[in-house]
Amino acid sequence: MENSDSGSCRRKTACANRGGKGHYPAQPMNTFIRKSVEELQAYTPGEQPKVEGLIKLNTNENPYPPSPAVARALKSTPVDSLRFYPDPVCSALRERIAAINGCSPDQVFVGNGSDEVLRLCMRAFTQPGGSVASFEPSYSLYPVLAASEELDYMEVPLKEDFTWFDPPDELAASVFFLANPNAPTGVVYPEATLQAFSERFSGVVVLDEAYIDFAEGDNSWIWAQNRKNVLLCRTLSKSFSLAGIRLGYAIGSTGLIDALYKLKDSYNVDCLAQTIALAALEDIEWMQDNVRRIVTTRKRVVMELEKRGFRMVPSGANFLFVEPPSGQPAADLFESLQAQKILVRYFPEGRTGSYLRVSIGTDAEMDAFLCAVST
Amino acid sequence: MENSDSGSCRRKTACANRGGKGHYPAQPMNTFIRKSVEELQAYTPGEQPKVEGLIKLNTNENPYPPSPAVARALKSTPVDSLRFYPDPVCSALRERIAAINGCSPDQVFVGNGSDEVLRLCMRAFTQPGGSVASFEPSYSLYPVLAASEELDYMEVPLKEDFTWFDPPDELAASVFFLANPNAPTGVVYPEATLQAFSERFSGVVVLDEAYIDFAEGDNSWIWAQNRKNVLLCRTLSKSFSLAGIRLGYAIGSTGLIDALYKLKDSYNVDCLAQTIALAALEDIEWMQDNVRRIVTTRKRVVMELEKRGFRMVPSGANFLFVEPPSGQPAADLFESLQAQKILVRYFPEGRTGSYLRVSIGTDAEMDAFLCAVST
Repeated sequence: MENSDSGSCRRKTACANRGGKGHYPAQPMNTFIRKSVEELQAYTPGEQPKVEGLIKLNTNENPYPPSPAVARALKSTPVDSLRFYPDPVCSALRERIAAINGCSPDQVFVGNGSDEVLRLCMRAFTQPGGSVASFEPSYSLYPVLAASEELDYMEVPLKEDFTWFDPPDELAASVFFLANPNAPTGVVYPEATLQAFSERFSGVVVLDEAYIDFAEGDNSWIWAQNRKNVLLCRTLSKSFSLAGIRLGYAIGSTGLIDALYKLKDSYNVDCLAQTIALAALEDIEWMQDNVRRIVTTRKRVVMELEKRGFRMVPSGANFLFVEPPSGQPAADLFESLQAQKILVRYFPEGRTGSYLRVSIGTDAEMDAFLCAVST
Repeated sequence: MENSDSGSCRRKTACANRGGKGHYPAQPMNTFIRKSVEELQAYTPGEQPKVEGLIKLNTNENPYPPSPAVARALKSTPVDSLRFYPDPVCSALRERIAAINGCSPDQVFVGNGSDEVLRLCMRAFTQPGGSVASFEPSYSLYPVLAASEELDYMEVPLKEDFTWFDPPDELAASVFFLANPNAPTGVVYPEATLQAFSERFSGVVVLDEAYIDFAEGDNSWIWAQNRKNVLLCRTLSKSFSLAGIRLGYAIGSTGLIDALYKLKDSYNVDCLAQTIALAALEDIEWMQDNVRRIVTTRKRVVMELEKRGFRMVPSGANFLFVEPPSGQPAADLFESLQAQKILVRYFPEGRTGSYLRVSIGTDAEMDAFLCAVST
């Protein structure tokens, strides 16, 4: 099954455990709990250990701080204002996002991180017992969300080198979750290919652009905003250095956006997150400067790793997906790095099991990483 | 049907519109959208208008600021820390909540407001197409969440005076959402009655205690924490003056709590909310002082309104549910108050339609309210 180029997609039944541990939990069923929830294997976020001196290259956090405008906004927020409910529909933030992207505020949905946006898409754009699809490999949260929503999850295997493989025309899924750049590979798909696919696909294409700011070229995506079946999903977690405040958003046709608003929790985004996000989005230059620094570092690390015999997947993100020099299992290098207090991410299952995902940190952090992999 | 004391519960089919507007939306169906979402009438939160000089008694916000410890915690948070993901399971906060309540941290779930907790309960403790129940009237979010989860919603009518009515033994619901004090009435049910019901009910009882700190007596609820089918749901929005940060939590058996953790978004509570909530929960006295002030004001307002001929429902919350003196429609008083820049909450449908819900503000705000209703 691994490395399949056949183009046939694989159907995973709803609630299937990931990792071959069987369908039923070891513990006796709790009769109060929904069956699909008992069987659900929750998503495992990257570790957040509190180890002194640790170099943390495992969760794609930005190594540079958010804009000074964020600090100012936070400082000038009167604490007394916390006793009021936040704006339930993030009006000011939607206007700002709309202005940046050249769309209307009612084409913008703001969520508690793009996690919330993705979960709501899974629900809003499917019928009960329906199917969603994605590439394999892609963001490991998608199958968890599908199982949690009791949907079939279909995987379309990418090519051997993780580049685009055209999903079959008869793909019976109502949503395609399409991370671009892809995670955990970092691969950027050609824009024309995405556009052609969205014209061909009968359901909703969720373009998950968590890492788009690190990709080169013009990423304004006007065509996508004007398609009724495309939703762009973005986050302030990576390029804006704001993973801690949980702020994601979607841009799309009002038909799709309205459905997300109907389903969201009444006050889904807290008032400080709204204030901070607004400040950050008024200082785009700060974000762009940080992105430039990270991309420069990425290019340097790519060259250095190639010299050391690593197989590199071309990345348009703030991380690299790398295969250690021949003979060295990725799991061994993962452990060796951990012993040297360098934490990267390892996805042991399937064909991602021979790679490591390495976030781009500061130059000093990457020098330590390069030194550690050279020994 | 109104004011029914018959004890028969009413079944509402999933996705039924509230308010007799019919099952199908006026707009043409968008084929990308889940049918139940198209039909869903989203919850309407209380208005948050920006009107100068407005006296806002419509959303049960606390008129007093949060603890100074909150300001200190906020000020001492390094802005650089916002670039990291928050603790996905709120470890420090769960330990603090456990210590306050005399339970174990793994009996505590922390959510993005109790909105999230209630939504997850709706999902985790039902089977697909199942049923949940609540009293009528009760918190108007419950039927919206049920419709959103495609569940049947059954209403057990309270007595004429909004006091407890024993749900029938054969109640075929897997969760009973039981607000205590109830919303929008403010009625506190006898603890022994709740305990007896939870022993009799075959499903999960979600005791929604958003307003419990304003009720008199010992509310430690040790019995509830030790029952496998009871979940206590609380919030920092009201008594802790922190509606803006979205922090709710649940306490219950690990079987129930684990299910909520499986379903939640990966990083559901942002880092500032965690920091602020921890600070607030380390200054319980501040909250209790504010609660005492609010309860004192409430008692005074009750006496003054009784003098003016209002019919009062006994309240253990930070609001009053009042019927205007005979002959005056609640809708008229609502509008008259609005014209005087005083905003209260009005639920026009069913038997709540002859009442207004009035949040308890500062003494000055309540004097203005009393003056306005006397004219």
